[in-house]
Amino acid sequence: MVSFTIEEIKTILQGKLKGNTSQIITGLDELKNAKRDQITFIRSKKFACLWDTSNACVAIVNETLDIEPGPDRAFIMVKNADFAMSKLLEEFGLEDPVFDIDIHPTAVIHESAIVGVGSKIGAGCYIGKDVVLGDSVVLYPNVTVFDDSVIGNNTVIWSGTVIRERSEIGSDCIFHNNVSIGADGFGYLPNEDGRGLWKIPHIGNVIIGNGVEIGANSCIDRAKFSSTILGDGCKIDNLVQIGHNCKLGRFCIMAGSSGLAGSVTLGDGVVIGGSASIKDHVTIHSGATVAAGSGVMNDVPAGKTVLGYPACDSREMLKQWVTLRKLAK
Amino acid sequence: MVSFTIEEIKTILQGKLKGNTSQIITGLDELKNAKRDQITFIRSKKFACLWDTSNACVAIVNETLDIEPGPDRAFIMVKNADFAMSKLLEEFGLEDPVFDIDIHPTAVIHESAIVGVGSKIGAGCYIGKDVVLGDSVVLYPNVTVFDDSVIGNNTVIWSGTVIRERSEIGSDCIFHNNVSIGADGFGYLPNEDGRGLWKIPHIGNVIIGNGVEIGANSCIDRAKFSSTILGDGCKIDNLVQIGHNCKLGRFCIMAGSSGLAGSVTLGDGVVIGGSASIKDHVTIHSGATVAAGSGVMNDVPAGKTVLGYPACDSREMLKQWVTLRKLAK
Amino acid sequence: MVSFTIEEIKTILQGKLKGNTSQIITGLDELKNAKRDQITFIRSKKFACLWDTSNACVAIVNETLDIEPGPDRAFIMVKNADFAMSKLLEEFGLEDPVFDIDIHPTAVIHESAIVGVGSKIGAGCYIGKDVVLGDSVVLYPNVTVFDDSVIGNNTVIWSGTVIRERSEIGSDCIFHNNVSIGADGFGYLPNEDGRGLWKIPHIGNVIIGNGVEIGANSCIDRAKFSSTILGDGCKIDNLVQIGHNCKLGRFCIMAGSSGLAGSVTLGDGVVIGGSASIKDHVTIHSGATVAAGSGVMNDVPAGKTVLGYPACDSREMLKQWVTLRKLAK
Repeated sequence: MVSFTIEEIKTILQGKLKGNTSQIITGLDELKNAKRDQITFIRSKKFACLWDTSNACVAIVNETLDIEPGPDRAFIMVKNADFAMSKLLEEFGLEDPVFDIDIHPTAVIHESAIVGVGSKIGAGCYIGKDVVLGDSVVLYPNVTVFDDSVIGNNTVIWSGTVIRERSEIGSDCIFHNNVSIGADGFGYLPNEDGRGLWKIPHIGNVIIGNGVEIGANSCIDRAKFSSTILGDGCKIDNLVQIGHNCKLGRFCIMAGSSGLAGSVTLGDGVVIGGSASIKDHVTIHSGATVAAGSGVMNDVPAGKTVLGYPACDSREMLKQWVTLRKLAK
Repeated sequence: MVSFTIEEIKTILQGKLKGNTSQIITGLDELKNAKRDQITFIRSKKFACLWDTSNACVAIVNETLDIEPGPDRAFIMVKNADFAMSKLLEEFGLEDPVFDIDIHPTAVIHESAIVGVGSKIGAGCYIGKDVVLGDSVVLYPNVTVFDDSVIGNNTVIWSGTVIRERSEIGSDCIFHNNVSIGADGFGYLPNEDGRGLWKIPHIGNVIIGNGVEIGANSCIDRAKFSSTILGDGCKIDNLVQIGHNCKLGRFCIMAGSSGLAGSVTLGDGVVIGGSASIKDHVTIHSGATVAAGSGVMNDVPAGKTVLGYPACDSREMLKQWVTLRKLAK
Repeated sequence: MVSFTIEEIKTILQGKLKGNTSQIITGLDELKNAKRDQITFIRSKKFACLWDTSNACVAIVNETLDIEPGPDRAFIMVKNADFAMSKLLEEFGLEDPVFDIDIHPTAVIHESAIVGVGSKIGAGCYIGKDVVLGDSVVLYPNVTVFDDSVIGNNTVIWSGTVIRERSEIGSDCIFHNNVSIGADGFGYLPNEDGRGLWKIPHIGNVIIGNGVEIGANSCIDRAKFSSTILGDGCKIDNLVQIGHNCKLGRFCIMAGSSGLAGSVTLGDGVVIGGSASIKDHVTIHSGATVAAGSGVMNDVPAGKTVLGYPACDSREMLKQWVTLRKLAK
């Protein structure tokens, strides 16, 4: 088990020490749960009052807070307690599961596929025709990659994920379990005789940039023509639906169970809250935020926050909610 | 790469030529994205104004529109531009991934299972006891089919999908990645002593008609008794939940992230918008539409459109929204 | 096929017979669908009126109902028709698929893993380093369990499910298809230079109690530090999202497509309706109910029912809905 002295943690975080203790630190937890050998963190005044009753004897504290640790306890004062805590998590972190064999003999890899240097392919994986894996790609057991797909260097794909044909995936991505990339988009037309539905072919693909993370059981459909695109650095949570022909800019965030219908465009740095859903062909411009649970039916200007169903400016929606509450009384 | 002359496309679409160009066409895209060698489409006046600035030199145009292509450019005039475009996508479309071996040696197939003529079973598939696969069924790698299930001719099942025991699946269906068919329905009763919950056994199954498509990571639970039923031609998008004992008529459409609680009945041709959810035991009659994001708590008459949460007649709900917006000002 | 006489069913359910018939019973169905050889059930007056037109000739009836079966038909009078029906389902139920071989030769099991007595591991499963499986654990084909995870006695895990490293799972649990346990939580911080996002390491794990059931394609993320916890007897439906660091008490119920953001706390016996979603860091106290489709932004006191978006006391929300409906007219 990893452990650190206060001095070591101070050095890692490049912080200043206030008070002192000889306690060895073996982990982290929040103020109310931390044990004596766990370091905790205080990011604002709101949390400072919990310090006295906490079992922890060391905390990472935002340097703007004017509090004292007390006897035999210590604070490590830093610019940004959240960021420092996150850095420390990395130090305490365990490595991802390691492979005994780089390419497991039960993996089925088409002879035409190209596998880069240092890549690892787990048991039960399937790699189709003309697939290209970059260097140091990791496919955990039971991943399926179909024909003509390309996966960039250092990308890690967890078990159960399926990459359909012709997908282009960047470097340094992480795809969690049971993700579906590149399945047919959802599109039908009434048959010419008015009876039944005619499936629109989806001949496009999915293109995913570098540094993209996709949560477990999320789905990104391929385009009708051209591509469904996720820009560099997008972070997608679990159970998220991204329809055919959507285009996401760089560093967009979509929280759990949210969804984009077909042909939605997100600018850069757009944030979509949990369980929110966006109508087809809507554009949400850069820096805009859609609050959790909202249903968006119209374009959202850059930098704006929208809320509610149907979503509108968040302050207006709050007013509507207050108005209705008063009227009902 | 597939390519066509204007004359060839005219013949495929049985359209009329207006203007002309010798440009060879290698793909499709929408007006604002199409390159010089891509054909585009103009379905209404709204889009016609984008033609002048488009890089495309050929468009499929609804014959009711009175516009001219201009010099060295051409229109192929058709009855229904959407349908024609969809037909053309099929011509440009690539084939699904092909199997080098029909039955992969790593697939585990119970000796009692029956596999029809021309069926293909990918690497890592599991086929249980007494399973019956029709002719020309395709199971891509890592599909799991449990005991006593039956799958009809030409049905295609993509990787990661799991078909639980006793499921009956029709012909010409497509199931995308990581679908779950026939898991236990969700039902519990408080224990007789009032402590804890007692699991209600679900001894029924799932019956799926012909020509049904089911999106990635969607779930259809089996019935408590009798069957959860999807009629012929139903089209289900990604991440859709269909609870135990639901009965869907023919050609119902459920968009992404929508859900039916237990024992919901849909008539024929019902459309459920994205992220909409329907309360248990509700009936939505034939031809009705539930708008995206709605929460339906009561039966919906045939042909009606409902909207909102709680969902009501869509015009009424729009009035409510307008009323509240005005009152808040 | 299993079948029972009326006398046998009476004995199983410890009920009283009213009327009689020699009909052999081969299954169950509801009043309007039951055939002559199927038993049905009448739990309240509302359903009693359907008896005359039902094809069934035997029904399980709540003993408080004052109705007569009629000639050559019979009632089995019981305290709780729902519970009796559920017991009978168990008698008619079929066994889960059986394994011909306990440990399938295509399963890849790390040499350091410990497999308890009578456990079964299906084709294509992967069991990582230092995994511990208790006795009589069943892993159906194509399950993936990562390093250092522990699974208790009698737990059944269906195909496609992935258990990530360090997960601790109790006894007598059922996980359905394509479940994801223990993937990284969703957390990022803006980089110190203000450009892009920095991934917060999630070094915690998931701890799941005894008797927990998790529906198909549901996701439970692991904690940033310490653990995401589900108490004994929790029942989670399909496509449910449970974020990092959530803590669920005992016997909580979450219906289909519902979701908890990060660090949500549920007391004991909390019920979350279908498609409902809960904001991060919210606490819902024991015995509270969140109605289907609600969006909860604030703590909910014990035993209270909340409804709507934003969720509030259910009677207040109903008043708001009525008020708005009136105003719009």
